[in-house]
Amino acid sequence: MKTYADMTREELLSIKAELEEQFKTEEAKGHSFNMARGKPGVSQLVLSMPMLSVINDESDMNTVLGNDTRNYGDWDGIGECRRMMAGMLGVKKDNVIVCGNSSLNIMYDTVVRSMVKGVNGSTPWCKLDKVKFLCPVPGYDRHFKITEVFDIEMINIPLKDDGPDMDLVEQYVNNDESVKGIWCVPKYSNPTGISYSDEVVRRFAHLQPKAEDFRIFWDNAYCIHHLYDEPQDEILNILDECEKAGNPNMVYIFGSTSKVSFPGSGVSAIATSLENMDFIKKYMTTQIIGHDKINQLRHVRFFKDINGMKAHMKKHAAILRPKFEAVLDILEEELGGLGIGSWTKPRGGYFISFETMPGCARTVVAKCKQLGMVLTDAGATYPYGKDPQDSNIRIAPSFPTPEEMVQATKIFVLCVKLASVEKLLSTMQA
Amino acid sequence: MKTYADMTREELLSIKAELEEQFKTEEAKGHSFNMARGKPGVSQLVLSMPMLSVINDESDMNTVLGNDTRNYGDWDGIGECRRMMAGMLGVKKDNVIVCGNSSLNIMYDTVVRSMVKGVNGSTPWCKLDKVKFLCPVPGYDRHFKITEVFDIEMINIPLKDDGPDMDLVEQYVNNDESVKGIWCVPKYSNPTGISYSDEVVRRFAHLQPKAEDFRIFWDNAYCIHHLYDEPQDEILNILDECEKAGNPNMVYIFGSTSKVSFPGSGVSAIATSLENMDFIKKYMTTQIIGHDKINQLRHVRFFKDINGMKAHMKKHAAILRPKFEAVLDILEEELGGLGIGSWTKPRGGYFISFETMPGCARTVVAKCKQLGMVLTDAGATYPYGKDPQDSNIRIAPSFPTPEEMVQATKIFVLCVKLASVEKLLSTMQA
Repeated sequence: MKTYADMTREELLSIKAELEEQFKTEEAKGHSFNMARGKPGVSQLVLSMPMLSVINDESDMNTVLGNDTRNYGDWDGIGECRRMMAGMLGVKKDNVIVCGNSSLNIMYDTVVRSMVKGVNGSTPWCKLDKVKFLCPVPGYDRHFKITEVFDIEMINIPLKDDGPDMDLVEQYVNNDESVKGIWCVPKYSNPTGISYSDEVVRRFAHLQPKAEDFRIFWDNAYCIHHLYDEPQDEILNILDECEKAGNPNMVYIFGSTSKVSFPGSGVSAIATSLENMDFIKKYMTTQIIGHDKINQLRHVRFFKDINGMKAHMKKHAAILRPKFEAVLDILEEELGGLGIGSWTKPRGGYFISFETMPGCARTVVAKCKQLGMVLTDAGATYPYGKDPQDSNIRIAPSFPTPEEMVQATKIFVLCVKLASVEKLLSTMQA
Repeated sequence: MKTYADMTREELLSIKAELEEQFKTEEAKGHSFNMARGKPGVSQLVLSMPMLSVINDESDMNTVLGNDTRNYGDWDGIGECRRMMAGMLGVKKDNVIVCGNSSLNIMYDTVVRSMVKGVNGSTPWCKLDKVKFLCPVPGYDRHFKITEVFDIEMINIPLKDDGPDMDLVEQYVNNDESVKGIWCVPKYSNPTGISYSDEVVRRFAHLQPKAEDFRIFWDNAYCIHHLYDEPQDEILNILDECEKAGNPNMVYIFGSTSKVSFPGSGVSAIATSLENMDFIKKYMTTQIIGHDKINQLRHVRFFKDINGMKAHMKKHAAILRPKFEAVLDILEEELGGLGIGSWTKPRGGYFISFETMPGCARTVVAKCKQLGMVLTDAGATYPYGKDPQDSNIRIAPSFPTPEEMVQATKIFVLCVKLASVEKLLSTMQA
């Protein structure tokens, strides 16, 4: 098969004319698709409906230890939910604080607390001239937004197939005292779907930060979010590795059930060292008397434990897999061999990451929008919304039905082709 | 009746001997009472049990506008819950953001945001040499704790029967640029139970703050928490009054259903001007994708609207009233005319505020503890835990049963008498 780059101007013009015809046809259909966010589909939400009626008996509202979940108390979460979330995050119960409905909220609070009060007694970041975070790219836009609103300088770190470029990470962390943190999605990364290799996790644990208040923000958002039974990605336990390496306080692990039970009505957790927890406690117990314990109980009564969660995640996978495969099949069929795009084939998580030819991502997203299809903004996967290559597009296949995903991917492919042809022609003219 | 102060040394010694006997008898009984926090009793929690099964049908999970409450969206709360909470706070729906389970959390976040990002574009408080808050006293310990952890200097303002000493408030706010806020519980105040008069509310609205970023933190925690059908305390709408006075952005109103539905599993809200909301939105949408909308829906389906909430609060009142009255009856019976204590007779809220003779509160609380009764720490109702008179004790009658409250109040009265006699005798000796 001939790549677009190998085509003559005439061949490209002919393809362009054909694609423009198709574009008009699709435009006339008035599509409406949304692949912008990692939003579970309705059939996934239905899976957790029994959770909403699992507790309703007033004789049955107490924790194992006898605390009434309906009243104040247990600022760090009810014991059985801490244990369950510890199972999910692969840590010990004592290292877990179960919080509200949003792990993003815990991350934001963690950054804000460091801004105002420092980290375990260090100088508050807001008192420093410069604070920097490392941002493996492409990455999660909401992470970058947190550091952006607090005027923390963000530094792009290329994300490779086995994790961030650790040579670069070590160079920054071990030499620059203003580098205070790094955003990580270590498993089924948002958006590329890659997982960190054991070597990468160990190199993280063995960092020798110049700043005593440097912390790894380890957002294990997709820890049990496999798409396939096997092989499943597994990553090393960063908390254990940090402890072994003599850096016990260097990492905060975050996670939630937003994509296990209900987005917005799940439970979230932070896992970290006991010393870090002591510092967090002082502020968290000032911030709130306690999180929603009835919802914590609801989750424990429904899932029982980590095994129940894993069984539940298989049902999610069965729903998500066909959607991912629909996208991947059409991308392969329609774009394979054309040299105008590459994409990831994740085995878990919520996204497919697509790379257009340099300089085409914005155009593709704009053309898709014209056809009624909402994608994540081009650039969103980079700090400040600036993709230096203008090539990365995040595809979120979870919300539409498989049939809609087929339709939507065909439209996406059409827009990729058209934008690529236009780009190549403009290069020839110039 | 003779007051203790009018008694001779011999009379006091005789009473003391008698009280010490009683103390020993009570100590031997091994009591266990907790009147430390404003914690609803179990029979109050039971009132809201049907709420836990009010939604469970997958065909019925959408908002009036058709948004699926189980999925992401609606960062400012679902419309019908915003409307209901607006009814509770006496404001318009458009001025309300419904948040998570804790209004304290919103207050904390509001202070932190001001620390790091300022108020609607003002200099961040963390960049200023000095930030001060006014604290009407006695007041709510958790308010004071928030300003304390952020090293905000707290200034005591006497709380009178109709609200804070407004001469003093005006003097500080209108002349000192470092005064950035004031903590208020305007209705059935914690702990004295007083409500702000219309004149006080108007004087608040007409403040002419020296600091553009001065804000009133109006914690309307007990807005519908009447103990009696009539007369019920009502306060002027501070948001309207501020707008009329040309200070539309000067107030943040907070409230929650923690003591309407479930403590820890209710919904909370902030009500403020649209301009303030715009500034809040920028940070809140970075902090969280959205709060727990299923729980919001649960509340709306159960209460329907503000009228449903009010009807529900009558059931709470019927449970709480006998507990308050048990305390008040025994205080009157046992301490009336002795000149060793005074107390408030609230018509709503969660507390009775007790004033011992100067210098006796700590001793009373310690003696109660010795008899197995936990009270709020003496001093807790003052910033930094320092009651300059060592006289205020907050009594929380809500958690024990009425029978227990009778027992507990008798013990309390015993400790007050004993501490007072000891104090008077030590004064005579000196």
